[in-house]
Amino acid sequence: MPDEETAPLAGKLAGLTSSAIRDLLKLTAAPDVISLAGGLPDAALMPGPRIAAAAESALHSPAVLQYTESPGWGPLRDVLAGRESARLGRPVGVGEVFVTHGSQQALSLLAEVLLDPGALVVVEDPAYIGALQVFRAAGAQVVAVPLDSEGMRVDLLEELIAAGRRPAVVHTVSNFHNPGGVTMSPRRRRALAAAAEKHRFWVIEDDPYGELWFDRPTPEPVATYSPAVIRLSSASKILAPTLRVGWMVAPKRVCRAVELLKQGADLCGSALTQQIATELLADTEWLGGHIDTVRRVYAARATALVDAVTDEFGDRLRCSSASGGMFVWAEFTDGTDTTELLPRALDTGVAFVPGQAFAVATPYSHAMRMCFTTAAPEVLGEAVTRLARAVAQAPVAAGQSAQL
Amino acid sequence: MPDEETAPLAGKLAGLTSSAIRDLLKLTAAPDVISLAGGLPDAALMPGPRIAAAAESALHSPAVLQYTESPGWGPLRDVLAGRESARLGRPVGVGEVFVTHGSQQALSLLAEVLLDPGALVVVEDPAYIGALQVFRAAGAQVVAVPLDSEGMRVDLLEELIAAGRRPAVVHTVSNFHNPGGVTMSPRRRRALAAAAEKHRFWVIEDDPYGELWFDRPTPEPVATYSPAVIRLSSASKILAPTLRVGWMVAPKRVCRAVELLKQGADLCGSALTQQIATELLADTEWLGGHIDTVRRVYAARATALVDAVTDEFGDRLRCSSASGGMFVWAEFTDGTDTTELLPRALDTGVAFVPGQAFAVATPYSHAMRMCFTTAAPEVLGEAVTRLARAVAQAPVAAGQSAQL
Repeated sequence: MPDEETAPLAGKLAGLTSSAIRDLLKLTAAPDVISLAGGLPDAALMPGPRIAAAAESALHSPAVLQYTESPGWGPLRDVLAGRESARLGRPVGVGEVFVTHGSQQALSLLAEVLLDPGALVVVEDPAYIGALQVFRAAGAQVVAVPLDSEGMRVDLLEELIAAGRRPAVVHTVSNFHNPGGVTMSPRRRRALAAAAEKHRFWVIEDDPYGELWFDRPTPEPVATYSPAVIRLSSASKILAPTLRVGWMVAPKRVCRAVELLKQGADLCGSALTQQIATELLADTEWLGGHIDTVRRVYAARATALVDAVTDEFGDRLRCSSASGGMFVWAEFTDGTDTTELLPRALDTGVAFVPGQAFAVATPYSHAMRMCFTTAAPEVLGEAVTRLARAVAQAPVAAGQSAQL
Repeated sequence: MPDEETAPLAGKLAGLTSSAIRDLLKLTAAPDVISLAGGLPDAALMPGPRIAAAAESALHSPAVLQYTESPGWGPLRDVLAGRESARLGRPVGVGEVFVTHGSQQALSLLAEVLLDPGALVVVEDPAYIGALQVFRAAGAQVVAVPLDSEGMRVDLLEELIAAGRRPAVVHTVSNFHNPGGVTMSPRRRRALAAAAEKHRFWVIEDDPYGELWFDRPTPEPVATYSPAVIRLSSASKILAPTLRVGWMVAPKRVCRAVELLKQGADLCGSALTQQIATELLADTEWLGGHIDTVRRVYAARATALVDAVTDEFGDRLRCSSASGGMFVWAEFTDGTDTTELLPRALDTGVAFVPGQAFAVATPYSHAMRMCFTTAAPEVLGEAVTRLARAVAQAPVAAGQSAQL
């Protein structure tokens, strides 16, 4: 019997498609293309030798070779509880900390724990694709609220609620939004937390980039203001993705529910990579210096990118303020369609992700996401020169003003 | 607002409970209890120094620090395709190999890929609890077919189908069953594969223990006989659980569907632990010697346990033949109820898992699972002495013959 004749797959797969970002990454891997399309931190800045030393020392203990507990390796949860207590300005107990296989796993387990089929989920527009994918796969009804320079338009969320919609979950990337680049203002944070309490919905505050600020620290987390806010963070952007260490801070009853699902999902994480993360996160002096270096390098790259865009395009391509994180969101004010631009850009040797890939309600046809983390400033300058060449070849459509 | 007043959790959580095994593990961790209740391989036999050396060498490459591809680290998939080609006696392509975070993750992703809500899943009775949990969480209808000394009663599966039931998936632990201890005979394997083709259902052949044979190798995998059989295996029992490396061999269209769900579930595995697994699995000479050692040690422990049971209980407690794997399944023929026995056994200083914990249709009230992997032969002897003491204190119920 040939493979094609084996039994059918589940019906819901018909509605799932591969992540646009992942498919694009495959297309833009050509060596002569400068890719701003990726979303990866720079491996050259990751502490390989420090991780090797931590692995060597961890492996003296047989417990590190064994299965570990579903909510995470005990010493890691202790260290995270300490860090999060400092971040949230209140004592966070170990029972409120749950370690996941990257924060993507926290999103997927939370979708199961918090959502009944057909539940309403509010995301930001443009949206983090990994969240969209999870909420759609969970059978949620997804509605989008746009971003502006202060982050999520909480006033529009409130209008939606006033019109009778009842969200179960509101998802926000509060700091250095992917893809939008913006950071939610303190007053929006307070308003969002207050709305969550008033209307009894959960907020998932997804914060993988918060420590990558360039000039000044990010505002207090949304989770500071209410236990209705579940905070997600990750070691991927400050240490290394290979550790697959993300975590959530959530009320104990949420952590207990997530634990039940984690057992079925994959039993537990890796005690080895979690012990490595423990050692590196606990060494606060080393970690502080390490993150400072990453910030400094990324800041120089972000500035180089934004400056080159301003020099080449002036007001025709408006960038989000590159004040941290990994991405710049830029919108053409002259009507250039970025999806149409991409093949020409690839021809001139530069790649980006068109805004359309992140669009939920607004089309974002004139926008694009550019990742500045992995190229040197001069390479970013060359990328923008190539982009200008591609734009010069493009027919300019009717003007439309930027929305972000 | 106190935590209790935050928004509700999903309705389906009401039906989920923690794994009985995991809860028991917590109760039996007292230092004066000899626990045969666990299900862990022996960490003292795991190759810690070899893993440390592989980690050190892997970390010279920055790619090992980065995100990796959702279907797994390329070099690991290559090595696994080679191993599985040898095991299955046909060329297995890399596109048919998918690396998961332990084989538990393969089960949970396959449940999503293969099952529509309400689909019929056939499991073995007694059942692997981790599979039961996943299929129930997926909203499947679970029906059990008993084991005997030749493994799954495929004849009863065929009766079920003849009576009009239409399984979407049949799950089997083909070698050294957890908890049943038995290995499916070659003729049952062929019959199961033929039924899968005839009636167009999927078989998930879950095989974490197949390499841990004591006297002679296990029969050809069920997957040898049909592409309708998806084969799962794992590095947890031959190398170390901390690597979180499991894998499946499945038709390409199944692997592509699993990839879409893996992206949402956790993006990808750890390139570091997957590269460690690559190096250790590729060093076939070293690996052969290492697995031989594990086999020899486990075989001595299994023999010590079964001999002690025979010496103490004679025909009153019948054991499965301990020919490999990690578990002995034993049934009291004198009517002793193992759930009632457990508290008294804990008092005398020995723990096991009552058969009830694995029961689906048959109650298995007189049966128990004993894990022989982590105690020395003399400790296992002492465990059986304590068990006999506990039984001597127990009221003997009306006799009932063993079912396995």
